[in-house]
Amino acid sequence: MDRLIEKIKATDCPVVAGLDPKIDYVPEHIRQESYKQYGKNITGVAEAIYAFNKGLIDALCEVVPAVKVQAAYYEMYGLPGVEVLYRTLAYAKEKDLYVILDGKRNDIGATAQAYSTGWLGTADLDGEAGAQSGADSLTVNPYLGSDGIVPFINDCKKYDKSIFVLVKTSNPSSGELQDLQTDGTPIYVKTAELVKAWGADNIGKHGYSSVGAVVGATYPVQAQQLRTLLPHTYFLVPGYGAQGATAADVAKSFNADGLGAIVNSSRAVMCAYQKSGKSAGGYAQAAKDEAYHMGKAILAAVKGGR
Amino acid sequence: MDRLIEKIKATDCPVVAGLDPKIDYVPEHIRQESYKQYGKNITGVAEAIYAFNKGLIDALCEVVPAVKVQAAYYEMYGLPGVEVLYRTLAYAKEKDLYVILDGKRNDIGATAQAYSTGWLGTADLDGEAGAQSGADSLTVNPYLGSDGIVPFINDCKKYDKSIFVLVKTSNPSSGELQDLQTDGTPIYVKTAELVKAWGADNIGKHGYSSVGAVVGATYPVQAQQLRTLLPHTYFLVPGYGAQGATAADVAKSFNADGLGAIVNSSRAVMCAYQKSGKSAGGYAQAAKDEAYHMGKAILAAVKGGR
Repeated sequence: MDRLIEKIKATDCPVVAGLDPKIDYVPEHIRQESYKQYGKNITGVAEAIYAFNKGLIDALCEVVPAVKVQAAYYEMYGLPGVEVLYRTLAYAKEKDLYVILDGKRNDIGATAQAYSTGWLGTADLDGEAGAQSGADSLTVNPYLGSDGIVPFINDCKKYDKSIFVLVKTSNPSSGELQDLQTDGTPIYVKTAELVKAWGADNIGKHGYSSVGAVVGATYPVQAQQLRTLLPHTYFLVPGYGAQGATAADVAKSFNADGLGAIVNSSRAVMCAYQKSGKSAGGYAQAAKDEAYHMGKAILAAVKGGR
Repeated sequence: MDRLIEKIKATDCPVVAGLDPKIDYVPEHIRQESYKQYGKNITGVAEAIYAFNKGLIDALCEVVPAVKVQAAYYEMYGLPGVEVLYRTLAYAKEKDLYVILDGKRNDIGATAQAYSTGWLGTADLDGEAGAQSGADSLTVNPYLGSDGIVPFINDCKKYDKSIFVLVKTSNPSSGELQDLQTDGTPIYVKTAELVKAWGADNIGKHGYSSVGAVVGATYPVQAQQLRTLLPHTYFLVPGYGAQGATAADVAKSFNADGLGAIVNSSRAVMCAYQKSGKSAGGYAQAAKDEAYHMGKAILAAVKGGR
């Protein structure tokens, strides 16, 4: 997690820009150009998204420390989409961004190891080591317990990577399982205790473990509770903006050192150009401005809250 | 789920063959042939796995109703691996197998919809509908609650597909969260109640819902409890063989109608040829024999248990 923290300090911007593209987010001129070259088919759509991403990354890398690439939006477009996922990870890495793959992967034992190898490590190609994917970090789901998490943690140590474990998610129904009480303690706190234990022996020089937590900004009371419980855990915070959380809400996820959280924004950044008065040609600049101002608003709320 | 049940009845074999290939499972002669053609690199490795899978599918389609393709083992080999995943899904579909993608996908709202579109549905290619992936079914993780499941259920109805929701997994640490008690009820039962509700309005002509459950055979007491609680839910049952569960254990997951469960075996089927006396050239026949005898052993236990 040290590498992420250093990038956050360098940019003074605790924002991760989400690259969760749907074809209708892509400006018309990029789409038409791609369809001319590749046809109006799944390849044309995927390539339009890649061109869109590339423009976003070129602009965003000047203001944000990290991008979060949401696997679902690429898998939606089949193999051409997944190919663009790999190229997006590699391009963001090339631009020196901290690259979080939001895949929420989960399985057990050797299968969890296979996911970890694929995204964080290097595969054994019948005796030779393969290449890495470009991801610095992966989101994972804890429902299967330690067997499903330990392979990822081992690779975090081996390859200097991180994971973010779902603890309390931002969606309205997150409480159906996560808020159930067990001996007076909600499940998300039990998950948090596991996260604490999983990360305890891999705390970096800035005081944070390689095992982070996903904590939705839409539940500020729970976020504050988790912040106290997990002083050495970095939070990946979804829910800002479109889902309703404010800068004051996300401020609950920060520690007194001004660190401890990175806040995601996807659609508001990607589609900033669609707001009145912005042109599609300036979509990358609009995204950059949006991310920059979001960072400033959050930092102000974090400082104001102390 | 009707289509799966009809295939199980037609084959009289409640076994799903897992295609979770690592390169060291692939017989030497297939590897060498692939390396000669593609080089000993990630493409050569992925193509060797595809050739292995193809041989397995050609043989297995004569005895089993379904295959379960584990996404992790393909993602392990990067983009060439994922390309082989898509081709494996398509080839198994072509051979008229019921194709379960074991991806344990999970996310919320529009993002869950993107996963569902990618694997079960058809993407909107800027106004035109894309192709389907070949998967008939997808495993999903319930930690995020209904927001993360409903998009998949809607697509099950729309595209005649199914999902299997993780309820009680087969691994040693599955109890860390799944067995926690809430008002005297373990979390896996709470999940089961959600599964029941999610599937209630989509029960097919054979009496089973399109929303199935993953129930590990390594916990036969819990399996029996869940069987009683979920009479209209099909179980996908891992844990047989290598993980220690016996035919008598998996029999607990069946209903009195002899239906209600399909039991997975991956490595024991794929690597059956490695047992003494089998040649690598006959790997597909060995896999077929193994799956066939496993089916017979399970059916005998199911009948004996009544």
